[in-house]
Amino acid sequence: MATINDNYLKLKAGYLFPEIGRRVKAFTEANPSANVIRLGIGDVTEPLPTAIRDAMHKAVDEMGVRETFRGYGPEQGYDFLREAIAKNDFQARGADVSADEIFVSDGSKCDCGNILDIFGPNNTIAVTDPVYPVYVDTNVMAGHTGPANESGEYGNLVYLRGTAANNFVPELPTQKVDLIYLCYPNNPTGTVATKETLAKWVNYAKENGSIIFFDAAYEAYITDPSIPHSIYEIPGARDVAIEFRSFSKLAGFTGVRCAFTVVPKTLKGRSQGGEEVDLFRLWTRRHTTKFNGVSYITQRGAEAVYSPEGKKQVKTIVDFYLANAKLIRESLSSLGIKVFGGVNAPYVWIKTPGNTTSWQFFDDLLSKANVVGTPGSGFGAAGEGYFRISAFNSRANVEEALRRIRKTVQA
Amino acid sequence: MATINDNYLKLKAGYLFPEIGRRVKAFTEANPSANVIRLGIGDVTEPLPTAIRDAMHKAVDEMGVRETFRGYGPEQGYDFLREAIAKNDFQARGADVSADEIFVSDGSKCDCGNILDIFGPNNTIAVTDPVYPVYVDTNVMAGHTGPANESGEYGNLVYLRGTAANNFVPELPTQKVDLIYLCYPNNPTGTVATKETLAKWVNYAKENGSIIFFDAAYEAYITDPSIPHSIYEIPGARDVAIEFRSFSKLAGFTGVRCAFTVVPKTLKGRSQGGEEVDLFRLWTRRHTTKFNGVSYITQRGAEAVYSPEGKKQVKTIVDFYLANAKLIRESLSSLGIKVFGGVNAPYVWIKTPGNTTSWQFFDDLLSKANVVGTPGSGFGAAGEGYFRISAFNSRANVEEALRRIRKTVQA
Repeated sequence: MATINDNYLKLKAGYLFPEIGRRVKAFTEANPSANVIRLGIGDVTEPLPTAIRDAMHKAVDEMGVRETFRGYGPEQGYDFLREAIAKNDFQARGADVSADEIFVSDGSKCDCGNILDIFGPNNTIAVTDPVYPVYVDTNVMAGHTGPANESGEYGNLVYLRGTAANNFVPELPTQKVDLIYLCYPNNPTGTVATKETLAKWVNYAKENGSIIFFDAAYEAYITDPSIPHSIYEIPGARDVAIEFRSFSKLAGFTGVRCAFTVVPKTLKGRSQGGEEVDLFRLWTRRHTTKFNGVSYITQRGAEAVYSPEGKKQVKTIVDFYLANAKLIRESLSSLGIKVFGGVNAPYVWIKTPGNTTSWQFFDDLLSKANVVGTPGSGFGAAGEGYFRISAFNSRANVEEALRRIRKTVQA
Repeated sequence: MATINDNYLKLKAGYLFPEIGRRVKAFTEANPSANVIRLGIGDVTEPLPTAIRDAMHKAVDEMGVRETFRGYGPEQGYDFLREAIAKNDFQARGADVSADEIFVSDGSKCDCGNILDIFGPNNTIAVTDPVYPVYVDTNVMAGHTGPANESGEYGNLVYLRGTAANNFVPELPTQKVDLIYLCYPNNPTGTVATKETLAKWVNYAKENGSIIFFDAAYEAYITDPSIPHSIYEIPGARDVAIEFRSFSKLAGFTGVRCAFTVVPKTLKGRSQGGEEVDLFRLWTRRHTTKFNGVSYITQRGAEAVYSPEGKKQVKTIVDFYLANAKLIRESLSSLGIKVFGGVNAPYVWIKTPGNTTSWQFFDDLLSKANVVGTPGSGFGAAGEGYFRISAFNSRANVEEALRRIRKTVQA
């Protein structure tokens, strides 16, 4: 009989967000009149800006005329988009990234998981804790870990703890690791890494021959001009880092699906025989063999993000969510709750009031305030006793949610 | 230093289609005035029908209004699309497939590669020869093969030969295999499998505990009413087969990106410990963890394929390509060339005239007729001496290409 990938059997319960979905569904089915406000999954709520819709309408029309119809595009994305990305997201910030080092894809979640395909089975892998669960789960699936212990931590992974004491920006590992996942602005804690912090990581990676997987999906939310948007703003990062970017939170593309990954041509890994191998070449092979490009219509929409009107319209939405984040921060702080993030990120990370666990607070908030957040423990053991609140919603919903949370917490 | 996946180093040269792209690019750069006609890559050329474009325009507009805006959708696809697929593609043909067994994705190429994630490392894997190269290359990348020999065949794979003698429909393997790739209507040979042939495979799989990967990307081109469109038309197939489908060739979606995979809930694999495990559960975990759904706009476009106007418009295009295939068949037959396929498929598979190799004929046709086809040897050793010609082009281009091929062959 065909045998399965036994590593899947090591995975603990469901992926976090489906589990939240199940609990919310059960609650709303039992309480059909409850007006549930979702500040949980981190999904955008504001409509696509006109510049993007206009570009997509135009692209749909082009697809209706033989002369302008487009079939298979380049797997790595159209030059018009890759060049706009290289110019605006990197070169304009002094980061040395060329258009042909950019691989357009249908999502950062996919890329973060798929990138493991090109690496070997014996790397030592470090993740932060708390952490975006996809980094961990995809390593479990790929067989890079042992089984989970009772607190949900997998063998063979190196967990770098974020705590209130280090402001949820973990220290360098004390041992040698080969692959390191970093996410700044951070999901779930909303914290950021300074130039100095990232430079420390780049140096560490250089010294140890490590590769950094840098997830910058939330860079558009950086308000502090001293914080780098890309790891390639740090000298030497081209030799040690792969960067993941997304249009999801930048331009409301969670339902449209467009992202990209940067694999610099200067990046090397080592074969078992000890020879240096270009990771760019391997990722090109992976991307062209197991992927077939992003919808032309979507890519035209993404290109419009970089037009003068697109930039303005996208900024308006990001600013709107950031104002929500500020409201959440201030309102919960005034209740005496300890808050992190929410300044350079759309997430506010709070210490659960009282001594409740993350899931207790989740259930409490859902049943009493009819508000959905995300339990910190879903992001790792160090997230226990914390809770993530997302700024992605209408102003009215955020204000109403805060009123209800206040009432619940003060009860 | 981080180590790479050494299996990538086993891959021979480039993936077939990029290699064709390189040769065509070199030729057109050297001969800028040449009017090259592309019957190579199998990419559609006719514009998207109005029913599909209208649905996509409407979806873009919905994304511009807060009340109808959609963020993350279900990773498996929206119910509206999954239900339309289940009803039209399966239940209408008497195949027992339910909507929740359908996983919408951005491409069959992706799905065919990704499906290997849920299987173990020690399965015996059979592919036909000639074969769609992605099946082989993704197994090489996953470490399921040994190195390639001088004819490009990888160790540990079982190759099932298609030859003129068996009309390019290979026999059952003489040994026990665990995973089997079948593609009908076939890419590249354009041949089809009868109900009897598929029933033989289903029985073989039942007896041997094998799983069949059935790629039906070209089912829309079946003209013979006795030929099954889905393997699930065969009794018992639900227990042994995963089916891949695509909107690419059905509805001109090569640049729009939508496909789906059927994983029946009755399908089982075995863990190392010997217990039976639901493949549906594993694929659900894979799909929700490493994928984030297809663009809402794209899914509305795909749904429109099943509307009364959509069906009519899509059929018109398929019929148009089939008429091209007929022209190609007849024209080349009349030159004394042995042809296969092209009746229930958009591909015509020909024996190269004279004793030329596949790549010799490719270079000859490109340089003398300025026509691009696909060398049969790119699909495997058994494809040597054969050549694939695609029916995807305008009538004028097909006719002009045939005139030029005639001239070249008769020269």
